[in-house]
Amino acid sequence: MAPQLDGYFKQVDALSDHFIERLRKAVAIPSISADEERRPDVVRMGEFLADELTALGAEVQKRPLGKQPGKEHLDLPPVIIARYGNDKKKRTILVYGHYDVQPAGKDDGWATEPFELTIDDKGRMYGRGSTDDKGPVLGWLNAIEAHQKAGVDFPVNLLMCFEGMEEYGSEGLDDFINAEAKKFFADADAVCISDNYWLGTEKPCLTYGLRGCSYYSVEISGPGQDLHSGVFGGTAQEPMTDLTRVLASLVDTDGKIQIPGLADLVAPLTDEEKSLYSDIAFTMDDLHESLGSKTTIFPDKERTLMGRWRYPSLSIHGIEGAFSQPGAKTVIPAKVSGKFSIRTVPNMEPEDVDRLVFKYVDDVFKKLGSKNTMKCSLLHAGKWWVASPKHWNFSAASKAVERVWGVKPDLTREGGSIPVTLTFEQATGKNVLLLPMGSSTDAAHSINEKLDKKNYIEGIKLLGAYLHYVAEEPITN
Amino acid sequence: MAPQLDGYFKQVDALSDHFIERLRKAVAIPSISADEERRPDVVRMGEFLADELTALGAEVQKRPLGKQPGKEHLDLPPVIIARYGNDKKKRTILVYGHYDVQPAGKDDGWATEPFELTIDDKGRMYGRGSTDDKGPVLGWLNAIEAHQKAGVDFPVNLLMCFEGMEEYGSEGLDDFINAEAKKFFADADAVCISDNYWLGTEKPCLTYGLRGCSYYSVEISGPGQDLHSGVFGGTAQEPMTDLTRVLASLVDTDGKIQIPGLADLVAPLTDEEKSLYSDIAFTMDDLHESLGSKTTIFPDKERTLMGRWRYPSLSIHGIEGAFSQPGAKTVIPAKVSGKFSIRTVPNMEPEDVDRLVFKYVDDVFKKLGSKNTMKCSLLHAGKWWVASPKHWNFSAASKAVERVWGVKPDLTREGGSIPVTLTFEQATGKNVLLLPMGSSTDAAHSINEKLDKKNYIEGIKLLGAYLHYVAEEPITN
Repeated sequence: MAPQLDGYFKQVDALSDHFIERLRKAVAIPSISADEERRPDVVRMGEFLADELTALGAEVQKRPLGKQPGKEHLDLPPVIIARYGNDKKKRTILVYGHYDVQPAGKDDGWATEPFELTIDDKGRMYGRGSTDDKGPVLGWLNAIEAHQKAGVDFPVNLLMCFEGMEEYGSEGLDDFINAEAKKFFADADAVCISDNYWLGTEKPCLTYGLRGCSYYSVEISGPGQDLHSGVFGGTAQEPMTDLTRVLASLVDTDGKIQIPGLADLVAPLTDEEKSLYSDIAFTMDDLHESLGSKTTIFPDKERTLMGRWRYPSLSIHGIEGAFSQPGAKTVIPAKVSGKFSIRTVPNMEPEDVDRLVFKYVDDVFKKLGSKNTMKCSLLHAGKWWVASPKHWNFSAASKAVERVWGVKPDLTREGGSIPVTLTFEQATGKNVLLLPMGSSTDAAHSINEKLDKKNYIEGIKLLGAYLHYVAEEPITN
Repeated sequence: MAPQLDGYFKQVDALSDHFIERLRKAVAIPSISADEERRPDVVRMGEFLADELTALGAEVQKRPLGKQPGKEHLDLPPVIIARYGNDKKKRTILVYGHYDVQPAGKDDGWATEPFELTIDDKGRMYGRGSTDDKGPVLGWLNAIEAHQKAGVDFPVNLLMCFEGMEEYGSEGLDDFINAEAKKFFADADAVCISDNYWLGTEKPCLTYGLRGCSYYSVEISGPGQDLHSGVFGGTAQEPMTDLTRVLASLVDTDGKIQIPGLADLVAPLTDEEKSLYSDIAFTMDDLHESLGSKTTIFPDKERTLMGRWRYPSLSIHGIEGAFSQPGAKTVIPAKVSGKFSIRTVPNMEPEDVDRLVFKYVDDVFKKLGSKNTMKCSLLHAGKWWVASPKHWNFSAASKAVERVWGVKPDLTREGGSIPVTLTFEQATGKNVLLLPMGSSTDAAHSINEKLDKKNYIEGIKLLGAYLHYVAEEPITN
């Protein structure tokens, strides 16, 4: 039986100015986690959330995470955890979000003050953190408030976990989640994360997969110090010569990874999976627009989406230790580190990827016959994640999307990684759903980040509706 | 008839403490031309030189060079030109040096304060600019003073040209030299530059050749802005992929340049030239010590010296626009510029080198089949220089070396370029000699730059003796 949501929806509409004011207050706090001097603002943002949640009747804890690794004079901002409702007869949903933001300044090219929510005549609400991730985090608070004011019973117990270091690698969070999995988070029946985006601008989606990322460095060294190319050019073997040859051997212009055996690790494409791609609301024009060019590998949508979601890719990010400034410097760098990463997909085990990468790089370097020294190492690895979109957590979300937006959501995966997703799945053993609020044009991490008013208000309805459908889903798995 | 130099030499020894004090005063002025905030110090250093020269009875001019290109709020430091002696019966020698220095700070790893001349118990005088090029510049002043105090007639008319922007590309100097070639410098019979180093530490040398340098950038661009490799990896053609492939195609580990036709431009090695290399005071151990490693291309001295002096080399310096910091950033850079340079030798005409480079890079890029855009351009070119070491300018210097150091100097070339050398040769039409004062271990441009006390004091004798032998050389060419 479809839940009665009209009263809740009406209340969300009635409170929309109030909810926008709440977002305005949150955006005004420049909670930049990467900027040491803004740490007090990050803490202030956590306190703002805690106060708002307390006022709504949630049971709130501010949990310290200790000192920041490598910056021992600096406290990590607290994780704000909260419980709203404690009814054994109801399902319990654990939601995650983050209250810190990326750096932003007018100098970077913002058209408006980044920490002043500025709404244009098309309802685009500009401000750092509007869509990533303050809007979605407040969405949960707003859903609680609208239920209260509408007099509608809240359909589930809600556990909340909001962190303040997401944009700086979620320092300390994994240990915290693992430690609380059987304590504060023990009752969770499923997990919902609202911290990603629709694939396009028109059609909502549910996300059930993310690629992993294995990041490598190839360091090549020879001389004891940087050399002058006039004096030593033609007499010494140059690390940069070797490094460019190693890097050039990794991948070709069309993205084909040259490392033998790597493709064999990838789960084969089934006909069933293949058929899913054609229906996804996505066009090559969308891609060209977001790329700012037509320099794509594939001419068609299907292969492009597969290239992003279900096949590995290898990107060369840059070189540390070489000349990187504008102008002309005639240096022979003594020690250079090339950085590249591989986006991984099912069923690539990170250890297998490492093994193949190390062997290949070693083979290529050996063939150069160089007297220089080469060291290839893994800088970090995050595993891919794929959930079952047939779980009741997804079917509830799917019904909520249809109710709020009037369309069936696309079931999507993403090319990037959100490491906390896998952490929650592994720590709790429960299904994890990614339920985005914003759209592909929101420019998270870029200048002029925004959240459309419509996505925010309908998104609040969506989060609430999702919880109602969750409460009604039969237990299937 | 060998000149009578004993009185002059004795006087140099007697004044050695005074000459070291003069160097101490000069080193104490941090005349860093690359640092805008130090510009007043550069100007002060020029004034110090002008005052000292005036006190010695030279006719001195401080000649402005206008504003610094690209930094129009900043005056270039003046060129200090001076004349000492105006006797039509004497030969006139034009000497060049520079009074600016490379940046230096204790933070860089200096063992002593870089702008405080610090003398250790082995007579090594540490300080920025000690050997490059304040020691040699003061050498000329000291030679004048020692002649005066010894009551020895100065054997030539001396024209001096001391600039303050050498370490920043000698901004404005070429035009100045060309303009003054038939004016202030019109009387010059030959040119002497003391701004390079012995090949090793034991044996003096005279330098008659320099390689040129053609510096290129290969810019590859595609997307409208930097991309996230999670979102776009596997869907977009990446400029870094193309760039590493282009750079890797330029040269191999053993320094063999892969550009077709380039080797054909190089003057063939004659048996006569080949025979010269075995006598040069240089060992592979010297090279290993200065390299700080044994990662050399050739196992023997002869081919190593040829690799440095008489064959072209290609070095890849770095990449602008890519990720170059420590750590791991998952960016796909949108526009990257690879920088490389070719050290050129006789008879490579810079225009021919450009043509072959552009064609080759273009061919390699085309073969990639990339939709990205490639632009290869020349950032700057300086031509190689080779003088005749049989000119009286060289034979005078050779005799002076034998008199002061008791050995015949090696006749050497250098792998690097000193562009002003060629400018003086072309502008005046006269023979140019490079007469170094310091040794190969002086660490010009590095931390812990020094000049050995012995090289400084004997070097002052050498410069004076050179002028005496110049006065006695028959006119042969």
